[in-house]
Amino acid sequence: MPAQVVNKDLQNERSKCTFNQEEFTLWWVGGEENLKEKRSRETYFASQPEFQDIVPLHFASHQELYEQTIRKATVIFTKVKKLLTDQGKYDAKNYVHFMEALLGSGFIKEGNPLGLHFSMFIPAIVGHGSPEQQERYLNKALNCEFIGSYAQTELGHGTFLRGLETTATFDPETDEIVINSPTLTAYKWWPGALAQTVNHCIVMAQLYSNGKCYGIHPFMLQVRDSENHMPLPGIDIGDIGDKMGYKGVNNGYLGMKNVRIPRTNMMMKNAKLFRDGTYVKPSSSVLAYGTMVFVRVIIVKNMAQSLAKTATIAVRYSSVRRQSPINPNQPEVQVIDHVTQQAKLFPVLAKAIALKLTSDSLWEMYEQTTSELNSGSLDRLPELHAIACCLKVVSTSDTATGVEVCRLACGGHGYLTCANFLNYYSLASAASTYEGENTVLLLQTARYLVKMWNQAVKGQPLMPTVQYLKDYVGSAVKQFPWSNSLAVIISAFQAVIANKLRLACQRIEQRKAGGSTPEEATNMTALELIRVADIHGRWFVLQSAYEMYEKACQKASPQMASVMQELCKLVVYDEALKISGDLLRFTTMTESDLIQLQQNFEGCLEALRPNAVGIVDAFDYPDFVLGSALGAYDGNVYERLFEEAMKSPLNQEPVNRTFELYLKPLMKSRL
Amino acid sequence: MPAQVVNKDLQNERSKCTFNQEEFTLWWVGGEENLKEKRSRETYFASQPEFQDIVPLHFASHQELYEQTIRKATVIFTKVKKLLTDQGKYDAKNYVHFMEALLGSGFIKEGNPLGLHFSMFIPAIVGHGSPEQQERYLNKALNCEFIGSYAQTELGHGTFLRGLETTATFDPETDEIVINSPTLTAYKWWPGALAQTVNHCIVMAQLYSNGKCYGIHPFMLQVRDSENHMPLPGIDIGDIGDKMGYKGVNNGYLGMKNVRIPRTNMMMKNAKLFRDGTYVKPSSSVLAYGTMVFVRVIIVKNMAQSLAKTATIAVRYSSVRRQSPINPNQPEVQVIDHVTQQAKLFPVLAKAIALKLTSDSLWEMYEQTTSELNSGSLDRLPELHAIACCLKVVSTSDTATGVEVCRLACGGHGYLTCANFLNYYSLASAASTYEGENTVLLLQTARYLVKMWNQAVKGQPLMPTVQYLKDYVGSAVKQFPWSNSLAVIISAFQAVIANKLRLACQRIEQRKAGGSTPEEATNMTALELIRVADIHGRWFVLQSAYEMYEKACQKASPQMASVMQELCKLVVYDEALKISGDLLRFTTMTESDLIQLQQNFEGCLEALRPNAVGIVDAFDYPDFVLGSALGAYDGNVYERLFEEAMKSPLNQEPVNRTFELYLKPLMKSRL
Repeated sequence: MPAQVVNKDLQNERSKCTFNQEEFTLWWVGGEENLKEKRSRETYFASQPEFQDIVPLHFASHQELYEQTIRKATVIFTKVKKLLTDQGKYDAKNYVHFMEALLGSGFIKEGNPLGLHFSMFIPAIVGHGSPEQQERYLNKALNCEFIGSYAQTELGHGTFLRGLETTATFDPETDEIVINSPTLTAYKWWPGALAQTVNHCIVMAQLYSNGKCYGIHPFMLQVRDSENHMPLPGIDIGDIGDKMGYKGVNNGYLGMKNVRIPRTNMMMKNAKLFRDGTYVKPSSSVLAYGTMVFVRVIIVKNMAQSLAKTATIAVRYSSVRRQSPINPNQPEVQVIDHVTQQAKLFPVLAKAIALKLTSDSLWEMYEQTTSELNSGSLDRLPELHAIACCLKVVSTSDTATGVEVCRLACGGHGYLTCANFLNYYSLASAASTYEGENTVLLLQTARYLVKMWNQAVKGQPLMPTVQYLKDYVGSAVKQFPWSNSLAVIISAFQAVIANKLRLACQRIEQRKAGGSTPEEATNMTALELIRVADIHGRWFVLQSAYEMYEKACQKASPQMASVMQELCKLVVYDEALKISGDLLRFTTMTESDLIQLQQNFEGCLEALRPNAVGIVDAFDYPDFVLGSALGAYDGNVYERLFEEAMKSPLNQEPVNRTFELYLKPLMKSRL
Repeated sequence: MPAQVVNKDLQNERSKCTFNQEEFTLWWVGGEENLKEKRSRETYFASQPEFQDIVPLHFASHQELYEQTIRKATVIFTKVKKLLTDQGKYDAKNYVHFMEALLGSGFIKEGNPLGLHFSMFIPAIVGHGSPEQQERYLNKALNCEFIGSYAQTELGHGTFLRGLETTATFDPETDEIVINSPTLTAYKWWPGALAQTVNHCIVMAQLYSNGKCYGIHPFMLQVRDSENHMPLPGIDIGDIGDKMGYKGVNNGYLGMKNVRIPRTNMMMKNAKLFRDGTYVKPSSSVLAYGTMVFVRVIIVKNMAQSLAKTATIAVRYSSVRRQSPINPNQPEVQVIDHVTQQAKLFPVLAKAIALKLTSDSLWEMYEQTTSELNSGSLDRLPELHAIACCLKVVSTSDTATGVEVCRLACGGHGYLTCANFLNYYSLASAASTYEGENTVLLLQTARYLVKMWNQAVKGQPLMPTVQYLKDYVGSAVKQFPWSNSLAVIISAFQAVIANKLRLACQRIEQRKAGGSTPEEATNMTALELIRVADIHGRWFVLQSAYEMYEKACQKASPQMASVMQELCKLVVYDEALKISGDLLRFTTMTESDLIQLQQNFEGCLEALRPNAVGIVDAFDYPDFVLGSALGAYDGNVYERLFEEAMKSPLNQEPVNRTFELYLKPLMKSRL
């Protein structure tokens, strides 16, 4: 059924592209070397028949889906390990990198149940294990002689770590630690691969020794027998059930009843517990801080990729789909010719690229901060932490929203699972909750900004990203002089942040003066605070994208630079229009400036229209990575939808058995 | 495992409620009679063991899910039919009403594959069939002697009906009509129950007679054999695959190749085709117009119910869940005590009620318009149509957004399928696309508004909902005098609509003057137009809610009236804050007015806090209708989550077979 030729409308779009796609792709992936590596990996993966599903897993039951993902995950692990070993490059980092770079949404849309073993269990051994413990566990874990998970979240506790209820009590008589889930809400709940897959995990629990609680610490625990995989005594373990996404990662629960482990299973790289029950606390908690930031940098990066993939699907489909003539009695136009469709898709496309540039910029900041950290300077860590928090929020929420905009822009067909939007939405949506719930993270950024505001007011020095606050200190609104240039618009965001921050700080002071504790006053002012933190994140995205584009344009061909400029303008205008109310309040922007801004935005849509397909092509995502019937390179959308439908188990027989069982009796009964 | 007592925090919330819940419930359901009927139905349904799933269907495969929904649908149909027959009330309308009123999200979360037979196939027989055809089909259809679907949408065509490609060509030699799908894109695609369930359908196709095309008409077509359910010759029929939601409704495709039906199978209530091929067009197309409006009124009503259910789930869970102390060293507070959580949930709650009141108001308008229609006056139909279009958009998009706000506010557990948010989201999200894609509908409302503006400019009479436009004619912005009272804020929305409409009309004229056709000029101005149409819908929601609350408050007890006033204020302040940029542009609102508005909004949150649980309780949704482990009346959230997890097929055996098959070989291989 699939046609062998490329859809004519897509061919036509490609012929209109004004820039060199390879130039764009090299910029997007970061150079020749990366592109070569990426393509060779993709070729390898696409050529492995065992990596494919015979029947798409969205037709499978919960149990079949788990069993199939385990099958694929073990095959993929084995093959990739062999490949890397043959190349002399096998280690956990390369393996994870290899999988992540390629798999995103490709082979295991439903999530890889062995993923957590590499992405969290092994890093936790490295991060929490003493040298002796690393020697004991690391090679075996790398070799998959056992498989582990990381068990922190509980049924009743997530974001507020100090509230975790699981206990680990030292028994000096036997030199053991006794682990317990004292209540139902203390059950571990959510850890990936915990349900049926792993036989080990690192459990986070409140350490008690000599009757005193020392807070949350990690413990190595075996949960299933190595030979027969039966749950060990005292272990209540299983599956938490079906979820919106990540259906293959086998999220589990774990209850523990008087489970005894040797004291030496407490992970003792940082804190230590001695034979007599003496506890020595870790010298610094900065490293843990660094890991949290690192994970959030990765999230921003992944979100950018997800958004770029969904934009690819939607732009291609919108170029193929035709609907409604513009002029009466003319043929129906490509959907992408409707300005309403452009206004949905192009800002998502531009945002995807801006987020990618932001993650590059954040990565630079992270590397600089960690190198300063290693030479003993902690100065920039709070700033980095504050930025990483709000960028995690902006990137996950904008990606979730952007995916849904793309899906809805594809009409009914976007609702089909084979379009693959739901998968991207589920991933982005989960990321809004995990690794710090978004509202909680915004409050963390806000707390930093309030502190910086107070420093600015006192004339104390400020970190680079908040330098500008000093221009706004004082008790009255300072209106920023508006003009419709990119640099000015981005600076206007600073004016909005500073002025709103002033208002919020004034409210906090009023509330304190009215008798509230500082914490109560802050909680009551939280709506203003999270708004400021969100705009702070958006300002950073625009600023990073603007700088990165400027730099890139200097090296780019004129055609490429021209496309980059339009993409940069679009993302700035789009964000500015979204806070136009604030811009009217805190800058000199007039009614006619605002009308002009809207027209500039529409001008970008028009300018990008001929290159939209060219840009998404240049992202260079192979069809198997996009995983969408609507987004394939050849644009044979309808043939592919049909082909996907043909895989439905219900279509494998002309009459389903329910006809004889239920429908025929109903129709013949003449009730 | 489930505790027998109500969660203490919920008990405490209930004890704080300041109003009489029964009074609220009676207002919400529309009186004693309705409440009695609702509760008796609920008791009946809850008592039928055959209506339950033994294993929740989200664990089932695509095929099992279909088979189980058919089983349940036929059992439910048979039992309900018997019940209604015993009561002497059996007809299609009562049946549909009975099912709709109760089932929404209850027994068949995944959608009822027999639903379309009653909600579209039978109404289509009534709406399109001549008296003779109704006699031929209606009783048999009511009796389920055959089961039908309604096949309109095609793989390549949805919203733009004139583009449908299926042909129905009259053959004068045999007095038959020959139906064909001339291309792949002409395949019918999406009709519910079409895949494996029905043996008949009404097919929409382009009628050709004597070489001339007469446009889209309905035809009765048998697609499967009555005895063995095999597809009939020339019929290519099956399942379109897995979807985001409505997984049980068995959406199908249908290709036809030279399928012959008697001429008399063309549905001829309106248009007629005679033996010699002569075609007589219908006398009026107004009725079809009325049906579209009717369906949209129902959608608004359903969205309000969905949103109220999700608000119920999220408010109850947020009262049970505890997270993060506000003051340090204090216990963790109920999540609902965080102002950020209140700001997420309470506007959704208030919006749900406002949408319900809007649907009541729209229903009154619909009834008045149809009664005028029956007496020959078409005057208000375009106005009603314009309002119904934008309200369908506002209600579906706000419900989809509101459900996701509630889900994310429930953190990780909201992501579990047993929380049931995904189901509500899928339903609302589908409704954004079906029965008129949302952007297309906004453009229809906008077209009406532009016409009205031009009439206002010319001093011609205007319909009631757009009367106010005459106050704004002229070429310059008219700033509306702002004050922070509800009536004034709602009128300020009119100022925004009128001023933005003026700007859009000016842009259209400029573009026409620049050489664009009127249609091109409108298309290019579409972004401004859809914005106006959206605000028009929001104004109608606020205006309706305000009037309905005013009326209700006159009869209500003082305690109840006080709650109603807060709910009304909240929804008005919330919408006003969302368009604060426009209010700054088009009214005299100042910076301090805006700060006051924000404070008033926060004041509503505080005022509603003690009654939040009371209000959602008063919606009176039984647990089986909510279908959520997080939202049950007893608040035993954690016990229910555990209970739901225990139903997972993966938890029925201690070790999954994949251990021996894949994991053990991997762990023992020492690769």
